[in-house]
Amino acid sequence: MGTRRILFLPRTSLSRDILSGRARATLESLGEVVWNETDHDLTAEELAALLPGADAVVTSWGSPAFTPELLSSADRLRIVGHAAGSVKHLMPKEGYDRGIVVLSAAAVIADSVAEYTLWAMLSTQRDLYRYETLMKRDRRWSKSQGYAHELYHKRIGIVSASMVGRRVIGLLKPFHCDIAVYDPYLSDAEASALGVRRVELMALFAESDIVSVHAPVTPETRELIGPAHFQAMRDGALFINTARAWIVDQVAMKAELASGRIRAVLDVFDKEPLPEADALRDLDNVFLTPHVSGHTTESRMRLVEAVADDMARFFSGEALRLAVTWDRLRIMA
Amino acid sequence: MGTRRILFLPRTSLSRDILSGRARATLESLGEVVWNETDHDLTAEELAALLPGADAVVTSWGSPAFTPELLSSADRLRIVGHAAGSVKHLMPKEGYDRGIVVLSAAAVIADSVAEYTLWAMLSTQRDLYRYETLMKRDRRWSKSQGYAHELYHKRIGIVSASMVGRRVIGLLKPFHCDIAVYDPYLSDAEASALGVRRVELMALFAESDIVSVHAPVTPETRELIGPAHFQAMRDGALFINTARAWIVDQVAMKAELASGRIRAVLDVFDKEPLPEADALRDLDNVFLTPHVSGHTTESRMRLVEAVADDMARFFSGEALRLAVTWDRLRIMA
Repeated sequence: MGTRRILFLPRTSLSRDILSGRARATLESLGEVVWNETDHDLTAEELAALLPGADAVVTSWGSPAFTPELLSSADRLRIVGHAAGSVKHLMPKEGYDRGIVVLSAAAVIADSVAEYTLWAMLSTQRDLYRYETLMKRDRRWSKSQGYAHELYHKRIGIVSASMVGRRVIGLLKPFHCDIAVYDPYLSDAEASALGVRRVELMALFAESDIVSVHAPVTPETRELIGPAHFQAMRDGALFINTARAWIVDQVAMKAELASGRIRAVLDVFDKEPLPEADALRDLDNVFLTPHVSGHTTESRMRLVEAVADDMARFFSGEALRLAVTWDRLRIMA
Repeated sequence: MGTRRILFLPRTSLSRDILSGRARATLESLGEVVWNETDHDLTAEELAALLPGADAVVTSWGSPAFTPELLSSADRLRIVGHAAGSVKHLMPKEGYDRGIVVLSAAAVIADSVAEYTLWAMLSTQRDLYRYETLMKRDRRWSKSQGYAHELYHKRIGIVSASMVGRRVIGLLKPFHCDIAVYDPYLSDAEASALGVRRVELMALFAESDIVSVHAPVTPETRELIGPAHFQAMRDGALFINTARAWIVDQVAMKAELASGRIRAVLDVFDKEPLPEADALRDLDNVFLTPHVSGHTTESRMRLVEAVADDMARFFSGEALRLAVTWDRLRIMA
């Protein structure tokens, strides 16, 4: 076996954010790395020219998908590490069938999404920004607006015990919440190990003070959450979506939010960027962010580290942490 | 032994917030309760007239302190339950010497302060409100302002392993932070059980990404934190004070904040209400709230519950949870 060859596809402006010195050193310890020294995403043709002789490829946002045609140039490829979230469209079944291992750094992003979700729960419950306005803009001092609410002991509904869903459950542990989970793939034993109750989706919406969506995008989750679910929500309850708009009937959600009866924190939308005139932008009971829940400076800088560490494990025959199989892929985000 | 007599001092407008139906039932199960049916705080004279024959008193904000004179009317008093925070000035040494048990609901308030503190850490790190402004006021969509920061793995400095300090440490557990504590009364064994490092105060300020103050008001904590500590803080580090302004040299703090080099979340001030013209109200790197960190609708409603439950334990000879001894009092908030 000659020197290993590793292709690194992310463009330079993305690498600045996601490639740490440690990740660079790890990759270079594994073989000869062909860096993308340009600030453009490689085309499929450019990648095809580089693939012969390559043992490993690091991909990220903007990398071309591995079509069957591309794979015909991949004479030595054994592992692809995706330094980003979803690997849904990265590798066709042919690649998995040839035994090419696919890694996803989704776990890194999941940590950040879970952190955002806990913040969204705390922030909406305690509602402390109104005091900031009072103290700064109004130059006043008053506690008399009522004391808002706490997160402790609340009824939380988690839609899907996915990678993110499980992390949210973990962050909630010190708050002694009553956590209900809807997930048709979750066994009673797993639910019990997580310290949660399994419930039907409608019951989850009807009972919860806070509902947070963490389901994957699959054919069966298309508009999983519809008008009846929103109508069943308690007055003043909070709906959080950091997953995908795909899972939620957007018309039904907007109708219930427009009534002002429930509240929401939304990071994902059916059209992104969210159109300038979208009515969500006018609702005081909705908090909006532009699909950033999975990103912090630190977690982005861990993306290639996570992939490089797992590639090192792969080449030394150790158990992998980020590998995604074809079967898992179908029920993953 | 005749029927027990319990005096309930909080005025009606306060009782609305802090007296739940369950708490009322618990107190009534313990004896004959003399409710304050008025919306004014009892004077010492009014209390003196009620004390003879009373076994227990429930106090809260606005209740008179038990002076030695008042205690001379307390011929049967065995327990005082304070449905509020500090019992520092509630009972003189004479009362403790006579064996009167003093309960404090500070633990209930501590839960809320700790929750606020975790929120302050998450909120400042993730800085998500700037997106809300972008999405709503500016009707834009942009991730290009940089990705802010996470709380995971950060170096946290906790000033005092007090009731609140310990709760903050508990809420931080899932974030795998490196937690340093300054507390001259904390043993190495206790620090190790809490999963924290003991450090000197100056080292804590110099090393931490976030410093949070939870020390009590005692003669030795007066301006414990001074100019050298603020100057030692890392650029961009966050200072949180939910305890008391007493502990912090306010001039030094304001000077460092005015430079814009560090950030702060402040709930307590040397003058409360904070004067309208106070320069803190003009600083973008400071988040202000009007001494509300210890209060939520739910936690206020638990104040009398906690005291009543402990009174029930007292009268049935069980171990107490909220009792404060004279010795503890000297090093407590």
